[in-house]
Amino acid sequence: MKPAPLVGRNSSKIQDASPTTVQVGNATIGGTNIFIAGGPCAVESAAQLEAIANHLGPNRGNGHIQALRGGIYKPRTSPYDYQGMGQDGLSLILNVSQRHHLPFVTEVMAIDQIESLSAHADMLQVGSRNMQNFDLLKALGKVNKPVLLKRGLAATIEEFVMAAEYIASHGNSNIVLCERGIRSFDSYTRNVLDIGAVVALKQLTHLPVIVDPSHAAGRRELVASLSRAAIAAGADGLIIECHPNPDQAISDAQQTLSLEAMAELVESLKPIATAVGRRVAEPQRQLVAA
Amino acid sequence: MKPAPLVGRNSSKIQDASPTTVQVGNATIGGTNIFIAGGPCAVESAAQLEAIANHLGPNRGNGHIQALRGGIYKPRTSPYDYQGMGQDGLSLILNVSQRHHLPFVTEVMAIDQIESLSAHADMLQVGSRNMQNFDLLKALGKVNKPVLLKRGLAATIEEFVMAAEYIASHGNSNIVLCERGIRSFDSYTRNVLDIGAVVALKQLTHLPVIVDPSHAAGRRELVASLSRAAIAAGADGLIIECHPNPDQAISDAQQTLSLEAMAELVESLKPIATAVGRRVAEPQRQLVAA
Amino acid sequence: MKPAPLVGRNSSKIQDASPTTVQVGNATIGGTNIFIAGGPCAVESAAQLEAIANHLGPNRGNGHIQALRGGIYKPRTSPYDYQGMGQDGLSLILNVSQRHHLPFVTEVMAIDQIESLSAHADMLQVGSRNMQNFDLLKALGKVNKPVLLKRGLAATIEEFVMAAEYIASHGNSNIVLCERGIRSFDSYTRNVLDIGAVVALKQLTHLPVIVDPSHAAGRRELVASLSRAAIAAGADGLIIECHPNPDQAISDAQQTLSLEAMAELVESLKPIATAVGRRVAEPQRQLVAA
Amino acid sequence: MKPAPLVGRNSSKIQDASPTTVQVGNATIGGTNIFIAGGPCAVESAAQLEAIANHLGPNRGNGHIQALRGGIYKPRTSPYDYQGMGQDGLSLILNVSQRHHLPFVTEVMAIDQIESLSAHADMLQVGSRNMQNFDLLKALGKVNKPVLLKRGLAATIEEFVMAAEYIASHGNSNIVLCERGIRSFDSYTRNVLDIGAVVALKQLTHLPVIVDPSHAAGRRELVASLSRAAIAAGADGLIIECHPNPDQAISDAQQTLSLEAMAELVESLKPIATAVGRRVAEPQRQLVAA
Repeated sequence: MKPAPLVGRNSSKIQDASPTTVQVGNATIGGTNIFIAGGPCAVESAAQLEAIANHLGPNRGNGHIQALRGGIYKPRTSPYDYQGMGQDGLSLILNVSQRHHLPFVTEVMAIDQIESLSAHADMLQVGSRNMQNFDLLKALGKVNKPVLLKRGLAATIEEFVMAAEYIASHGNSNIVLCERGIRSFDSYTRNVLDIGAVVALKQLTHLPVIVDPSHAAGRRELVASLSRAAIAAGADGLIIECHPNPDQAISDAQQTLSLEAMAELVESLKPIATAVGRRVAEPQRQLVAA
Repeated sequence: MKPAPLVGRNSSKIQDASPTTVQVGNATIGGTNIFIAGGPCAVESAAQLEAIANHLGPNRGNGHIQALRGGIYKPRTSPYDYQGMGQDGLSLILNVSQRHHLPFVTEVMAIDQIESLSAHADMLQVGSRNMQNFDLLKALGKVNKPVLLKRGLAATIEEFVMAAEYIASHGNSNIVLCERGIRSFDSYTRNVLDIGAVVALKQLTHLPVIVDPSHAAGRRELVASLSRAAIAAGADGLIIECHPNPDQAISDAQQTLSLEAMAELVESLKPIATAVGRRVAEPQRQLVAA
Repeated sequence: MKPAPLVGRNSSKIQDASPTTVQVGNATIGGTNIFIAGGPCAVESAAQLEAIANHLGPNRGNGHIQALRGGIYKPRTSPYDYQGMGQDGLSLILNVSQRHHLPFVTEVMAIDQIESLSAHADMLQVGSRNMQNFDLLKALGKVNKPVLLKRGLAATIEEFVMAAEYIASHGNSNIVLCERGIRSFDSYTRNVLDIGAVVALKQLTHLPVIVDPSHAAGRRELVASLSRAAIAAGADGLIIECHPNPDQAISDAQQTLSLEAMAELVESLKPIATAVGRRVAEPQRQLVAA
Repeated sequence: MKPAPLVGRNSSKIQDASPTTVQVGNATIGGTNIFIAGGPCAVESAAQLEAIANHLGPNRGNGHIQALRGGIYKPRTSPYDYQGMGQDGLSLILNVSQRHHLPFVTEVMAIDQIESLSAHADMLQVGSRNMQNFDLLKALGKVNKPVLLKRGLAATIEEFVMAAEYIASHGNSNIVLCERGIRSFDSYTRNVLDIGAVVALKQLTHLPVIVDPSHAAGRRELVASLSRAAIAAGADGLIIECHPNPDQAISDAQQTLSLEAMAELVESLKPIATAVGRRVAEPQRQLVAA
């Protein structure tokens, strides 16, 4: 492994050996908390996001998600595939986020999107295809927002750690790593969740590590079990695709959970979290603005 | 997926929809039990096995393993690598197994080994390199012993299921599947534990599925976390390499746990098992024969 | 790389540094000759083989193949897939082989098939799934027949070389290596022809190396170009699936060439062979027995 | 495969079925010409480039390269690895390029580099890590310069074609595809040259396809054979790393050829090119400016 003086576990640059926690709005990633983000692959409408926040957010008895996820810029294989709502989507997710006191994370695909996204989003996601878009990483190093860095489609653990080091070495150490499955020879699952990488990354770095079981599995019937495995392995959280009407989702329908399944999944994580000395925080109930 | 009428989950050949349990000596794989097998990569000496059985077997307070593992025929990359003790090793492991009331599993590499091994071993393992050695599978279909079928180095889930179907279609339905990591582009871990395959195999078949975290990881510091992930994901058990003096192990030293680490690992699984409605059975204490 | 004292290029056991040639009936693999074997995936009927030998064998003007290939024992993913004609097929291919003076190669899947196959076949093929069936390799080490060793589905170059060393170290050094594509993440082609491995194997060992472009590609429209690439890269020959009526082939239809396409392909190799100092031998015309 | 109306072979948008040729300075990629670009991984000094141009350029008897390659912005795994000379390197390569009448290609890593690079370079390279940096692709779609698009580290053939479609759909159809090896489980070679992809890309698109054997192999002793294989398979050219003193190269030393080896390699391609109806063009001799 190449040396990673800033994000490496034995960094001399951090004051003590304790793992980093990253604050995302009112939620914490790292420490004892198990962080859960949920939401659609793509932001589609106000009604879609409102349904999610209503069903899973802090005002629904015990809130099941601590943050919203939703893409407004979508990296798609074909230029003719749906590319996301863009700035219109930003207004929608910002509005729901604020009224429900749910921080949100969304993907940034280009340097010129950083300014508007960082003004409003609580965490900026770097997608798998951009994990080694070094100029984007450098630019995010200069931003005062947490970065959710997803592992590349076939990035080695070393390359993943060093991509984080690019961000850190340009000034931003609020980095969360996300294992989302790697490519393999088997097409039964969309990708292979590299659970060993989650363990290795926790050992090699002091950064929080979360798991995206939706992209790893590509099949919704696998998502809950993979989520439980991730928490048992020591992951600091999950980012999961869910939708009020999963079969109608514009993208990733096959891997998207219903809101009921999402709530059930989160409930099932609680005893696992306890078993490994963690807990799934419930976001604090607050008045939803009109 | 090709149809698997015998091992498939919706098999019309099994009387009900309930998953299969497989009896290995006095231990059960499947059902609520979490099965734990432990032992060396290669049988080396009576003292080695005795130390393991003493430390982890049923007579050490709460027994941590329900079966011994140990290779006497070793499939090795080079013909000049250590090939195992052969029949001499069989006597050693049989003796320890009997005195400690610990069933044992060992690898069968060739049809002409089946007779002697099946006379004594409690379960016969088919190694990854032989997962599609179809003549061996057919021969094991005619044996009245449970078979532990390890996934091939780069076998698809479909190929793995169909390899089990080869055994079943020749008459033996006492089959346990074992996920042990698949090949990937990353050399940080020896293989990539395909935790999604564990989940998929439980959904696609009615067979018990266990996990070998040792070969998946290739690094001992990852084994405990991968074991916890496996149980959380729904695996029916684990087969783990351990040794009284791991650094001196003839093979697989880097991935082999000490006996203390093994016991600690098994303890850590108990709350995870409880969280998913299972329990880690403790083998019943019995008098050790002289 | 582990040392391969017998098959390694710098073997002290071979008398000089010159590469090995392997004699298969009246054909030579290695040296200046480019060896071409052709035939069906599975032996289906006398008429099928007769058509191939008539069209491509030594008595059709310039013979395009120097050996027949054809499986009578077929390693298939499912036990319910067609498993080959067995001994009945052996008689068929032997008859055509003898009358047309075309040596033949066929796959041996199990030790108990060695005796009858080695009595009649000119070369015994070890399939990809058995590349590390070490007991089969050892048994073939004791046979006085050339062995065509196909690379495992995801075998490393080192493992492939060491599998050959298993055969050689048990007494048989008439070994031909066959690169047939490895598994990758892309499903457009069935496998990925690892042309770099062909080059590496020629550098690392003194054994002849041939290429199976049919299994590598999985699509017939790629086979000719891959064949030309193989020869340009230094391969000693090719083994190609062809059939008088490819779309009716029992197995591998999609990757099987027509006899016309096969002849055309071989013609196209000739200038490539010349460009790299080799030549595509034409089998000598002989009277076809009734 | 997703439809690729602009770069697809059966595009209705191109006037006829003939493949595209791309003009890079005074060199042509596509058609009967085999295009050869050579040069260092990283631009290091005027002397380095001058030596290459002198030895391999049009004024050295029969010129062996038709274009220079050389990185001034380097995508490196670690932020602490050498990142390239930047704009200073641009002046150096431009000067040598102009005096020797050798067009040059260099990598563009970010949108803000496009303006200065496209003002001077003859072709802009998109590196593997940026193959799905869609904003960069879109920006290059608006530039009036040829784009050399390298395949991603583990990009499928479909994803590669669609990345080209991104550029084309934004207005620039001067695109050359470059296969440079994909990731596999074997570490003997740096990557696996996917020669089947070269064939497939020629069938699926009307774009020129060249091969980078240096990054595919990662070992200089494999480069010449892979180059010959590429031309035999139908590639339209090669881009090869060479250096006056390869062992002293700042990066990629192991895979870099000496200038003598490079010249010898190109000579060896000529009969292969002839065998497939192509020819390796010799750049026209011209006065080298002082």
